Amino acid sequence: MVSIAVLGYGTVGKGTVDLIDENRALIAEKIGEDIQVKYIVDLRDFAGDRNEKKLTKNYDDVLNDKEVSIVCEMIGGSHPAFEFTMKAFAAGKSVVTSNKEVVANFGTELLAEAKKNGVSYLFEASVGGGIPIIRPLNNCLAANKIRKIDAIVNGTTNFILSQMFEQGVSFADALATAQQKGYAEANPSADVDGVDAARKIAILAAISWGELLSPDHVYTCGIRDITGADVAAAEKMGCTIKLIAHASRGEDNKLQIFVSPCMVKNDNILSTVRDVFNGVAVSGDFVGDTFFYGRGAGSDPTASAVCGDVIDAARNGRAKDRSSWTPMDPAAVRAYEDIESVFCVIDEKGEPSFTEKTTLRALSAKCGKARIFRLI
Amino acid sequence: MVSIAVLGYGTVGKGTVDLIDENRALIAEKIGEDIQVKYIVDLRDFAGDRNEKKLTKNYDDVLNDKEVSIVCEMIGGSHPAFEFTMKAFAAGKSVVTSNKEVVANFGTELLAEAKKNGVSYLFEASVGGGIPIIRPLNNCLAANKIRKIDAIVNGTTNFILSQMFEQGVSFADALATAQQKGYAEANPSADVDGVDAARKIAILAAISWGELLSPDHVYTCGIRDITGADVAAAEKMGCTIKLIAHASRGEDNKLQIFVSPCMVKNDNILSTVRDVFNGVAVSGDFVGDTFFYGRGAGSDPTASAVCGDVIDAARNGRAKDRSSWTPMDPAAVRAYEDIESVFCVIDEKGEPSFTEKTTLRALSAKCGKARIFRLI
Repeated sequence: MVSIAVLGYGTVGKGTVDLIDENRALIAEKIGEDIQVKYIVDLRDFAGDRNEKKLTKNYDDVLNDKEVSIVCEMIGGSHPAFEFTMKAFAAGKSVVTSNKEVVANFGTELLAEAKKNGVSYLFEASVGGGIPIIRPLNNCLAANKIRKIDAIVNGTTNFILSQMFEQGVSFADALATAQQKGYAEANPSADVDGVDAARKIAILAAISWGELLSPDHVYTCGIRDITGADVAAAEKMGCTIKLIAHASRGEDNKLQIFVSPCMVKNDNILSTVRDVFNGVAVSGDFVGDTFFYGRGAGSDPTASAVCGDVIDAARNGRAKDRSSWTPMDPAAVRAYEDIESVFCVIDEKGEPSFTEKTTLRALSAKCGKARIFRLI
Repeated sequence: MVSIAVLGYGTVGKGTVDLIDENRALIAEKIGEDIQVKYIVDLRDFAGDRNEKKLTKNYDDVLNDKEVSIVCEMIGGSHPAFEFTMKAFAAGKSVVTSNKEVVANFGTELLAEAKKNGVSYLFEASVGGGIPIIRPLNNCLAANKIRKIDAIVNGTTNFILSQMFEQGVSFADALATAQQKGYAEANPSADVDGVDAARKIAILAAISWGELLSPDHVYTCGIRDITGADVAAAEKMGCTIKLIAHASRGEDNKLQIFVSPCMVKNDNILSTVRDVFNGVAVSGDFVGDTFFYGRGAGSDPTASAVCGDVIDAARNGRAKDRSSWTPMDPAAVRAYEDIESVFCVIDEKGEPSFTEKTTLRALSAKCGKARIFRLI
């Protein structure tokens, strides 16, 4: 019997418990033994919940129980998620998480501590929800030099931009709809200002190149100031606008990384990512262009990724081959203004045109008040 | 030092040796020790080849060398690939392959023999070339009941159909172009008649549901008789035609599996798979819809998948968690004529229309000489 503990009984925590209830036989077959959620740790009260007997407010119950081999951390945020994860490792337990904030901020330390304790730290659910992207990058594409990642990894902003393009509504109206549908929080800043996407691209870059850049050093621009005029100009150019999380590393080894609304041509596969879906395009030196697509958020898809990791941890929890990262020196990052690209310049009359390949630094000097979008 | 042997010095074998030469430092870093191709086994002569010293015609050199822990089987075909693979397992070596024929025909026995010997049998490269699809299905989506797979897994036929739609040429002319470009063989039957795709969907179904159906029992129809009139009718209906490899399993547990040209609506992500690219759409009960895309063939992308598996085998060759399959009883497969679907019926005047959801059996009785395409 594999016994697990779920930390945080919110949307993802509940989804994980539900998935294990529903597909328990299937999971048991894959692991080779039965599985149970033995504890759910949450400080809130859930009187009458069908899992009431498993609920505890005391994390020590989990840490002291030698039967528990896997902890699913779904608390979110950096603290106490970081401390709880470190304690799990020290107690010889593997940790599976959907928490991009703690992975992006503390992934280096956490992977090292897991390795030190001979356990696993797995976070497939931290980027792209249910989309398999962490394991493919870590394993399937491991023999490639990764050249470039262009990703739509925030469903909220993608929904808003899809509404603006397809329904012709303003940012404010699209945001209100997203909030009504539960896709955006009352305070939507982490999504619409690009903070969430910055954490995710920092994680994807760390997997690709082994070095974790603090998301504070990722150039980040959100979608608040996208206007109807921008939308019209994009359409005129055969493009859509997407919040793109980009990371690339060329011959000179400088990391190029940013989150920014970009123009995406309609024949680029990323333009087909609509609504709350996510899509990640990865280029490697041998594999060429690949693309991964699916639901980037929500209880069920995230639980799918979490439970895939749980199965892996149950089968290979003590595997010695887990990746490790080193911290990335921000000096190894190219300034955003110096990243070469084709740009779409929208002049003061709203007239758009594409530039030659250039940099924002060179462009800004001569474009005055024009709106400038990177074309990816 | 991890020492590997490459069996078969054709396109994929050469690509694999080249990749290991080029990215040796990167691969060594991921494995944690250096890697070398110690033997290349091929019956042909390669006088003057830069790897001449590694070439041998005697497979026993590999089997008797205890330093060799991984054999990359790139011979193709069922025999002697099957026998060579079994011998490698008996000698305690893991095997990585790109050979869909041997996996589709003998996967059950080969996985069992690998398990018996405590080694790995890995075949990421056997479906979708460089696209990560086997490992995502086996691991990332392992907690899902897989509902449905719709896949474009043959680049040759996808190139031909793309030419027919985009250039307005006939099947014969598109095939000739594919042959000129080296995308199709002189005898193109395995590709254009759907045999290759049938093997690949049998493999994807086996990973999804643990049972391997002999590809001989997969209903298989190729693209030889697609006409300009079909293309015109599809365009009129807002569709394209793709050679779809389908597998699904519903509540009654009957397997639905086929390879057939199908109508694909232009807003279906599979319609965006053009030229020689491959795309695989997978639906699971928790993850929902996912999609994987990339180069499905060619020396470099295939070598990428092979070497990803080599890294896995080097790190986890003796892992105990590898999957195993059982043979599938063909009686558990629903007859093709009884698989429900919406169809596009093109009447004798070339006029297309969509049906309600029905079966081919019901339709054929009343549609006479009309052309009938399944809509996916």
